[in-house]
Amino acid sequence: MPETTMYITRRECFNAAHKLYNPSWSDKKNLEVFGACSNPNWHGHNYILYVTVKGKINKKTGFVVDFKKLNKIIKTNIFDIVDHKNLNLDVPFMKDILPSTENVAKAFWMQLSPHIEALGGKLYSLRLQESENNYIEYYGEK
Amino acid sequence: MPETTMYITRRECFNAAHKLYNPSWSDKKNLEVFGACSNPNWHGHNYILYVTVKGKINKKTGFVVDFKKLNKIIKTNIFDIVDHKNLNLDVPFMKDILPSTENVAKAFWMQLSPHIEALGGKLYSLRLQESENNYIEYYGEK
Amino acid sequence: MPETTMYITRRECFNAAHKLYNPSWSDKKNLEVFGACSNPNWHGHNYILYVTVKGKINKKTGFVVDFKKLNKIIKTNIFDIVDHKNLNLDVPFMKDILPSTENVAKAFWMQLSPHIEALGGKLYSLRLQESENNYIEYYGEK
Amino acid sequence: MPETTMYITRRECFNAAHKLYNPSWSDKKNLEVFGACSNPNWHGHNYILYVTVKGKINKKTGFVVDFKKLNKIIKTNIFDIVDHKNLNLDVPFMKDILPSTENVAKAFWMQLSPHIEALGGKLYSLRLQESENNYIEYYGEK
Amino acid sequence: MPETTMYITRRECFNAAHKLYNPSWSDKKNLEVFGACSNPNWHGHNYILYVTVKGKINKKTGFVVDFKKLNKIIKTNIFDIVDHKNLNLDVPFMKDILPSTENVAKAFWMQLSPHIEALGGKLYSLRLQESENNYIEYYGEK
Amino acid sequence: MPETTMYITRRECFNAAHKLYNPSWSDKKNLEVFGACSNPNWHGHNYILYVTVKGKINKKTGFVVDFKKLNKIIKTNIFDIVDHKNLNLDVPFMKDILPSTENVAKAFWMQLSPHIEALGGKLYSLRLQESENNYIEYYGEK
Repeated sequence: MPETTMYITRRECFNAAHKLYNPSWSDKKNLEVFGACSNPNWHGHNYILYVTVKGKINKKTGFVVDFKKLNKIIKTNIFDIVDHKNLNLDVPFMKDILPSTENVAKAFWMQLSPHIEALGGKLYSLRLQESENNYIEYYGEK
Repeated sequence: MPETTMYITRRECFNAAHKLYNPSWSDKKNLEVFGACSNPNWHGHNYILYVTVKGKINKKTGFVVDFKKLNKIIKTNIFDIVDHKNLNLDVPFMKDILPSTENVAKAFWMQLSPHIEALGGKLYSLRLQESENNYIEYYGEK
Repeated sequence: MPETTMYITRRECFNAAHKLYNPSWSDKKNLEVFGACSNPNWHGHNYILYVTVKGKINKKTGFVVDFKKLNKIIKTNIFDIVDHKNLNLDVPFMKDILPSTENVAKAFWMQLSPHIEALGGKLYSLRLQESENNYIEYYGEK
Repeated sequence: MPETTMYITRRECFNAAHKLYNPSWSDKKNLEVFGACSNPNWHGHNYILYVTVKGKINKKTGFVVDFKKLNKIIKTNIFDIVDHKNLNLDVPFMKDILPSTENVAKAFWMQLSPHIEALGGKLYSLRLQESENNYIEYYGEK
Repeated sequence: MPETTMYITRRECFNAAHKLYNPSWSDKKNLEVFGACSNPNWHGHNYILYVTVKGKINKKTGFVVDFKKLNKIIKTNIFDIVDHKNLNLDVPFMKDILPSTENVAKAFWMQLSPHIEALGGKLYSLRLQESENNYIEYYGEK
Repeated sequence: MPETTMYITRRECFNAAHKLYNPSWSDKKNLEVFGACSNPNWHGHNYILYVTVKGKINKKTGFVVDFKKLNKIIKTNIFDIVDHKNLNLDVPFMKDILPSTENVAKAFWMQLSPHIEALGGKLYSLRLQESENNYIEYYGEK
């Protein structure tokens, strides 16, 4: 079985507070656009993150990448920084970024991508779920 | 972050009655092909619909499209017409269409696609789940 | 470990059409009370049934009752009669019963209870789920 | 079928920010006891609430209570007050209450119980789920 | 809010191999009774364990018991001993016990109960799920 | 609606024992690389398999392929061979293959692909889920 390409996905949960607020707009405009999501006193979510890595199967291990190493990358570069945190205030890599699910997914991509490459795989997609009724997928497209 | 392409998905549930029946066939032939699904007295499902829209992130809102507007499109053009209804008898846009999951997904695509384009996104895929063990995905391919 | 009492639960899915309609009322009154659930052309659900049996552990098998035998009872007395059927028209044991989730649960209890007793257990509760947002539990209380 | 007692359950989701903080303690003590949950900048959750009502089946409707009326009670007395809110700052009926899941469940009980009695049922239990790995159940016991 | 009694539940997942085999029976008899579950080469499951503790709310913390301490008890006394193990061969507290779901649940109860009492709560129930279609509940009844 | 291309997916669950062990390595090396997954006494999982088939809608049936026929292919070629089995010892088509999720997915592909082609569809992807936190996807790529 040489050179077979597969996609492995790891799910990770975390919770955080945030609000949607564009500082170049008035409070009234923010309320109009973002509705309840602009609540000045914050709201929050249990987020679910799916990290999908593309790579070839290693013949000796049968793995695309070692799940334990992938988990450690996600823990160090995402989970430990965002879990039980405020996405607007507490997360250095989200500084000055409006924490819509889209923007959070893109910031996570930049956090994870180089580390996964160092592991010998390629970050293929991120799926970030904010509630049971909506989620974002990002494939690294410009 | 200019021009980043993302995919957002909205989940919507509805329930409906239907039967699988090809009027150009005899009842016996319908029973042979469709089995219990051809029950003349109908059966029904809790359907789950996933609508995925592709687009670029708006820098001011951080959104690909506004979820509230997407929800309204799905509600007006699908949910209000099919929920608690009979897919064979009650749904104008399903008239003369055999309501297999495949055909329902395609009819939903035609209902939704122009409205999503008007919103500034592109309908990328529909997933229609009929039970926990089977679903259809449609990407608008001919 | 003599005489230990445990509760075992089996989950079973089925789908069916139904409508809520009280024949002693006018159509207008039915619509007022039951809303979309009174649609004359039916609607339907994927129902999920949980059957919980109470009993003592058999020392030789480690079982309260044999799951395979419990499954067969549920299949013969419920599933084969209601799956892909119309609860108002097709089910002899529901004749003249308004198929609210409550009434369906009670009718299922009467179908299952004697057979489970014959197996050496006691039917403890039924949970009947009509959608992800609502379900009924029945413990055989008068 | 006179006088049959059943239990109906309605599920409702909402999201909110909160922190665990006892104002009679130092910040250091709060951190020791509550860990990451005491983050001064808040965190948040998608909560899932299950409201279970006990009652007798109405022979004319087949219902214990009308789900639509139960939903409205939950919406008016819980959802509209807590969704997209901060449980420490924004919710009048949580004022001066440490918003542990236990305390939130008890406060919800007091909000809902009289309205459900007015509907002709009895609030039997609340289950409040804070994450997929933990939840609280309350049966109104002192 | 003095003395309010609540029930908190913690979910924990683990996986293990096992087989159902009564050594006082012939292989043929084991196969007759246990079917595929008696496969001499083992099979396995992702088990889901729900541990429910009953107790009164501590006014200073708002907790029945501290989830972090409860998690540690479950980890030390269950998870670290059974995860990625063979329930027939590797688990000292299951020695000479036929690992039906019922018997595993009872053995877990004896492992957990004294430690939870030491925490100031009372083990109220265990639910052990072997697959999405069946689970056992145990309330400590003789 | 001529020639419309759709993707249909069938979910199937099974359980099995396995261990990760490379016979060309020492036990020590296996333990280093595979950790608890190399337990000599095995462990096991409830696996979930999703089989996705690509094809064109048949105008007479409304189906891409008949679900009943697809189910039978999965049952005969996968389920009946692996369910309640040991993936290292009991499965002829896994002989001498290290049963990582990746390698199991690839072996399943080779089992299913010709039969699905005979049905008039094309095997598009397999997703094999080993736990709620990780899964593999395979699209037949070399």
